[in-house]
Amino acid sequence: MYYPEPIAKLIDGFMKLPGIGPKTAARLAFFVLGMKEDDVLEIAKALVNAKRNLVYCSVCQNITDVDPCRICADTSRDKSMICVVQEPKDLIAMEKTREYNGYYHVLHGAISPMEGIGPEDIRVPELLRRLEDEEVKELILATNPNIEGEATAMYISRLVKPFGIRVTRIAHGLPVGGDLEYADEVTISKALEGRREL
Amino acid sequence: MYYPEPIAKLIDGFMKLPGIGPKTAARLAFFVLGMKEDDVLEIAKALVNAKRNLVYCSVCQNITDVDPCRICADTSRDKSMICVVQEPKDLIAMEKTREYNGYYHVLHGAISPMEGIGPEDIRVPELLRRLEDEEVKELILATNPNIEGEATAMYISRLVKPFGIRVTRIAHGLPVGGDLEYADEVTISKALEGRREL
Repeated sequence: MYYPEPIAKLIDGFMKLPGIGPKTAARLAFFVLGMKEDDVLEIAKALVNAKRNLVYCSVCQNITDVDPCRICADTSRDKSMICVVQEPKDLIAMEKTREYNGYYHVLHGAISPMEGIGPEDIRVPELLRRLEDEEVKELILATNPNIEGEATAMYISRLVKPFGIRVTRIAHGLPVGGDLEYADEVTISKALEGRREL
Repeated sequence: MYYPEPIAKLIDGFMKLPGIGPKTAARLAFFVLGMKEDDVLEIAKALVNAKRNLVYCSVCQNITDVDPCRICADTSRDKSMICVVQEPKDLIAMEKTREYNGYYHVLHGAISPMEGIGPEDIRVPELLRRLEDEEVKELILATNPNIEGEATAMYISRLVKPFGIRVTRIAHGLPVGGDLEYADEVTISKALEGRREL
């Protein structure tokens, strides 16, 4: 054993986090030794609190500290729309646009037969239950534009159409500020396909 | 506020660590939410323990959980040699070679006039006090081979020579497994300068 036990344990702790190997873990651990004790206590408390005080919203399945979450509890929003996203981070990304004023549904994953993830493993049943109860007119599918996300969107759209609800998918195309020269063929053909009159 | 408070606080906590920006912090925070509670508690405890239970060894100034540290308390080592390093991590690197059997002195930094770090700001006075008391015959200067490390080595060597102690500097040269083609001029000239008879 080279390091004193408290450091070795802290290094082991950091190595449990994703993308942190032994070198980075050691660097972080030595940095912690030089931090103010209050700051270290704050991080330690934040870790425990985040783990203990967060639950899934019983309505939209987003991670929240109050149930229902602040978005679901906000009655000023447009209850005719639900936007379906894969992860809580995607919801944050949508909210940052300030363009959308409806409610959300967080799937916590995407359908992926390769990884053995079916519709029952993500929050699809919860979504269907919501559609039965609530007065939703439009379901916006904002899953990621990759194979799993597309498959999930297709699956949900087929499942939901019989409810008589309008199902839409967010547009594919060139990212703003992007460069036609560097865009891949699939993106360009999707952009062409989705062209609109000016 | 986009994230629920417990997550936001955890993200803030991670962002206090070096090299972790908002995106990585959010990724780590969401990973923590998916971890087992025991593992999270362990990391939190390790953080607090590392900060609270570690002190500087009163002899060699290394970070330790017992004072004097395990190396200084080890009487089987060669007490005629002290190896001076900049950081505790450097000591670990030296120990890993299993080639050195003397004691250490950790400076916790290097002299750097640019950053206003003088000899009094690193553990040079403590080193001089040790040289007065202990029966040291050789002082090995293993500070980093950069400007600050060289300046520190030069400074200590001038200070210590009047004590009648042999002062040595670890060799500069090509790293083992390195490539002459890709080595810089200074390293090659140092390697040439330090050539030895075979």
